[in-house]
Amino acid sequence: MKIIALLTDFGYKDNFVGVMKGVILSINPQVNLVDISHGARPQSILEAHFLLKNSYNFFPKGTIFVGVVDPGVGSKRKPILIETNDYFFIGPDNGIFSFLESYEIKNTVHLTNKEYFLKPVSSTFHGRDIFAPVAGFVSRGVISEEFGTLIKSIKRIEIPKPRIKKGKLVGEIIYIDGFGNLISNISREIFDKFTKGSKFEIAIGKVRINKISSSYAEANSKTPIALFNSFQNLEISMKDDSCAENLGLNPGERIRIGRVAKPIH
Amino acid sequence: MKIIALLTDFGYKDNFVGVMKGVILSINPQVNLVDISHGARPQSILEAHFLLKNSYNFFPKGTIFVGVVDPGVGSKRKPILIETNDYFFIGPDNGIFSFLESYEIKNTVHLTNKEYFLKPVSSTFHGRDIFAPVAGFVSRGVISEEFGTLIKSIKRIEIPKPRIKKGKLVGEIIYIDGFGNLISNISREIFDKFTKGSKFEIAIGKVRINKISSSYAEANSKTPIALFNSFQNLEISMKDDSCAENLGLNPGERIRIGRVAKPIH
Amino acid sequence: MKIIALLTDFGYKDNFVGVMKGVILSINPQVNLVDISHGARPQSILEAHFLLKNSYNFFPKGTIFVGVVDPGVGSKRKPILIETNDYFFIGPDNGIFSFLESYEIKNTVHLTNKEYFLKPVSSTFHGRDIFAPVAGFVSRGVISEEFGTLIKSIKRIEIPKPRIKKGKLVGEIIYIDGFGNLISNISREIFDKFTKGSKFEIAIGKVRINKISSSYAEANSKTPIALFNSFQNLEISMKDDSCAENLGLNPGERIRIGRVAKPIH
Repeated sequence: MKIIALLTDFGYKDNFVGVMKGVILSINPQVNLVDISHGARPQSILEAHFLLKNSYNFFPKGTIFVGVVDPGVGSKRKPILIETNDYFFIGPDNGIFSFLESYEIKNTVHLTNKEYFLKPVSSTFHGRDIFAPVAGFVSRGVISEEFGTLIKSIKRIEIPKPRIKKGKLVGEIIYIDGFGNLISNISREIFDKFTKGSKFEIAIGKVRINKISSSYAEANSKTPIALFNSFQNLEISMKDDSCAENLGLNPGERIRIGRVAKPIH
Repeated sequence: MKIIALLTDFGYKDNFVGVMKGVILSINPQVNLVDISHGARPQSILEAHFLLKNSYNFFPKGTIFVGVVDPGVGSKRKPILIETNDYFFIGPDNGIFSFLESYEIKNTVHLTNKEYFLKPVSSTFHGRDIFAPVAGFVSRGVISEEFGTLIKSIKRIEIPKPRIKKGKLVGEIIYIDGFGNLISNISREIFDKFTKGSKFEIAIGKVRINKISSSYAEANSKTPIALFNSFQNLEISMKDDSCAENLGLNPGERIRIGRVAKPIH
Repeated sequence: MKIIALLTDFGYKDNFVGVMKGVILSINPQVNLVDISHGARPQSILEAHFLLKNSYNFFPKGTIFVGVVDPGVGSKRKPILIETNDYFFIGPDNGIFSFLESYEIKNTVHLTNKEYFLKPVSSTFHGRDIFAPVAGFVSRGVISEEFGTLIKSIKRIEIPKPRIKKGKLVGEIIYIDGFGNLISNISREIFDKFTKGSKFEIAIGKVRINKISSSYAEANSKTPIALFNSFQNLEISMKDDSCAENLGLNPGERIRIGRVAKPIH
């Protein structure tokens, strides 16, 4: 059975995801539907991008991903299908798939062939009317070119990247997980390249940390720790509590690493 | 594989839905289980009715729906199975299936044959003890008549309908979705029949709107817009924010359409 | 298709559960994945234990359970696989599987064979790196002994048990469900054995109840009732409202049963 994996910001109250699944199953009842998450922050392309980026390569080859965080639904943004050597990605062309490098992409198709849409297409729910049925037909083996016209590039959002400023490595919090852990855009690789094994101090809000813990179990109550999470991002965490709430920090918050013996002020 | 689609108000904290799935799979391991939603407002038959009404016809023929919002569990309300030409519906006879017109219903069975129940049947969880196992056996091909005695009609709840009052079309908010959009019982058809292309003003709370937007993308921050959603209901929405919270409005709130050049006061 | 049922405290915002499913499907695409719940209270082994205990025996024989509430991930607690005559259980050895009696357990394996892990194994997400892949390989028929070394016993947490104190049966609230119902550790059997059909009074917080209701439908608004729920635990409930919020009560709260004509003070 083909696998179709769904990521949306539709939440868990409404029937939106259920309806998309109904549409897919009406086209191909022999498909294995998997939820990646429907809890992405409403309208946050950045958050959906983060979740999808850190999920897709754990799925088997041939998986069809449908990603719907779509503030521009009904406007001019294109509905697209991206084919790579290993996967298919279906959703709005709004940057949600920016994690795919150009060289990885085999085909990008602007979805224009209405034969594969629900009729009529609403201007508010392309998840149901375009993306779900296209996913259903892709799972039945319809080739990418059938769905519309090939286009040369996808829209890319600006993903905040860490940079060196006044001798410090400056990153930012890009995601807060359900436990309240603060996840930064500083990867282990970038961190190691910067610190080169020397002493360091991590500064975020009023917190100063000068050690990388290896697991959550090392934390004491109420003292934030820093560690590299399972996706290799530098993360600030607090035992049995939400670090984000306790420190009052939000996505976008700066995190600075200094290669100093003296503390950062 | 047969499809069993579930809608409940059980939420996502407990094991109630998981246990129902275990019961179904114990009877028929070759079944495709789909969640429509488990986020219906606790005990709100009206909300469950709305979600199911706007979902079932997107599923393939033969789908078995289990709808459990059941404040009367353990009381005299009947457990039932409804068979239409295309679908099966299983749940309490409390109005949750009121969207089915009498002429669509082939059979309604009062579930009385304990052979198809879990033993003993609790008085608090018919989802597990009656509805799940009956769904499992329906998916295995057991015919409706096997499950109990035929009855002639189902209970129907009063669904609020829009009406004309003092020259105005008066409807009400029947559902607030997870984004905080206010969804009314005024369909596009009724709206068009009333306005006949003339100018209009939509009044809800302190908000006045005299235009139908075609997509969410048209909204500016903090100014509510009106549009017909993907289920063809007139809906009031706000960009990147919860309209319900911002305006302090709840289900039951009146929405009035005037065919006037002058504003409604 | 084999069934793999998942219980975690990962919630519904993140991609953690989705990633675990991707890992499982990469190993065995022909598996039926079922969510028991991902809403267990973060880090609450007791709550996860309660949910799993009241779920597993509703699933078909051969079901593979993955239970991940794992505050000690990355520390010395062992990753384990338990095989009983009917089921498999995979997760951390932290007491989450304490509901299994020693005589039921055929094999307990300390998961040490890295051949069946994702590489590299992180120190923060064994759900993805150890438990999910092992579940995938168990579903493909790999025998328990292959995964590591046999161990003789599992860790057991102290599950609060009701006791007799000064002539009263004293239990406690061990779980609050999504409706706000207060669920105690007093089973129907223990209750009946204590009261022996005589009059009784149930005392919790400021509430006194001297009757067992048979269903939620018996409740009047705002008056708490006592009933045995579908898992045979004594439960305190309130009509259309959260009993926990209304009474301001939490897990751990005492509940006392007196075999008295006079009220408890």
